[in-house]
Amino acid sequence: MQLFIGNKNYSTWSLRAWYLMSKFNIKFAEQQLVLDTPEFYDTLKNSFAVQKVPALIDGDLQVWDSLAICEYINDAYLSNAAWPIDSAQRATARSLSAEMHSSFMALRNEMPMNIRATREVELSAAAKKDLARIDEIFAIQQARYPNAWLFGEFSIADAMYAPVVFRLKTYQISLSTAAEQYCQHVLNCPTLQQWITESSKETDIVACDEAGIDAI
Amino acid sequence: MQLFIGNKNYSTWSLRAWYLMSKFNIKFAEQQLVLDTPEFYDTLKNSFAVQKVPALIDGDLQVWDSLAICEYINDAYLSNAAWPIDSAQRATARSLSAEMHSSFMALRNEMPMNIRATREVELSAAAKKDLARIDEIFAIQQARYPNAWLFGEFSIADAMYAPVVFRLKTYQISLSTAAEQYCQHVLNCPTLQQWITESSKETDIVACDEAGIDAI
Repeated sequence: MQLFIGNKNYSTWSLRAWYLMSKFNIKFAEQQLVLDTPEFYDTLKNSFAVQKVPALIDGDLQVWDSLAICEYINDAYLSNAAWPIDSAQRATARSLSAEMHSSFMALRNEMPMNIRATREVELSAAAKKDLARIDEIFAIQQARYPNAWLFGEFSIADAMYAPVVFRLKTYQISLSTAAEQYCQHVLNCPTLQQWITESSKETDIVACDEAGIDAI
Repeated sequence: MQLFIGNKNYSTWSLRAWYLMSKFNIKFAEQQLVLDTPEFYDTLKNSFAVQKVPALIDGDLQVWDSLAICEYINDAYLSNAAWPIDSAQRATARSLSAEMHSSFMALRNEMPMNIRATREVELSAAAKKDLARIDEIFAIQQARYPNAWLFGEFSIADAMYAPVVFRLKTYQISLSTAAEQYCQHVLNCPTLQQWITESSKETDIVACDEAGIDAI
């Protein structure tokens, strides 16, 4: 099984699939491509209908999109262990994951993931609203599962929200105590620490993800 | 079970959940709200964390987001009948559904769904690229399953792509023969015909969805 990903410092969508697979000890060959280079597009064009990462090859099968890869791994390799066991909790976890998948556009645009940087940022009203919703989600789930993952055990929902934890750190955003507690839980995860270590060794600069003021 | 939806003429995300549930004969009470009105936000605020449609109430459970509602119905009521039986086909159907969920932004912005209208539109290069990808998806799946749904039997993937079929019709977009064949298959569906009939009876005008030139 091959998982194609982009730069660990920048690629939020790559992180989701890599994190889910790594955390559940799924064996895969990591194929890393530098974002937005001719080699990136040429390599993906050879195997995939869509030239985006993450993208997975499993035998003859191609799976693309972070959420679809997570659902596929859950379905084909984990006997549904990547979602909560309880049907209602599973529905909530899927609601939160789908919300992350299709929303938070202002937050994404104004706070691009850049793990090795520390930044200050002036946020629009829309981005502040996105942040308030993130805070609410983390705080509600921490009230249910203190010092634990969003649904107690690690699930696809945590993989979907991991990139936003890095964004909050880079842009030095203050959250409620409960939400901060969730972020700390995520940042303490050894699997995520491995991603951070590897991202800190990367030297490529991706211009479109470097928007904002210089590192302080 | 209550499904909150917006105007049938305009609300693409509502259509997805309504179509999936109606096509599989799931019993639900339809709660329709006029998009972008104070009543819309007030009503949703009473029951949901997110003030968007579609949104589902099933007993004590709230499920929001079109894809999450489809996955929930598949999981809780359909014993997985809303995805292809074959694991590889299921992965492809989920890839296509997730791609629709997070992509095609230019197409969405420039071709808002407006079922009862007929329009002409000047498209950006990005929207043309989106359309080429839609054509490719429909044509590839028609080659596999001629005159049938994307994966032979009706699945969540068809519910996710139904709104784009209406956009193509409203803006009079020409597609390849194979892609047109899929669109015709969708438009012939009696369940979708019911949605069209009901949308044609609506009289509310939602300004942000009426962008573009006058109806011709």
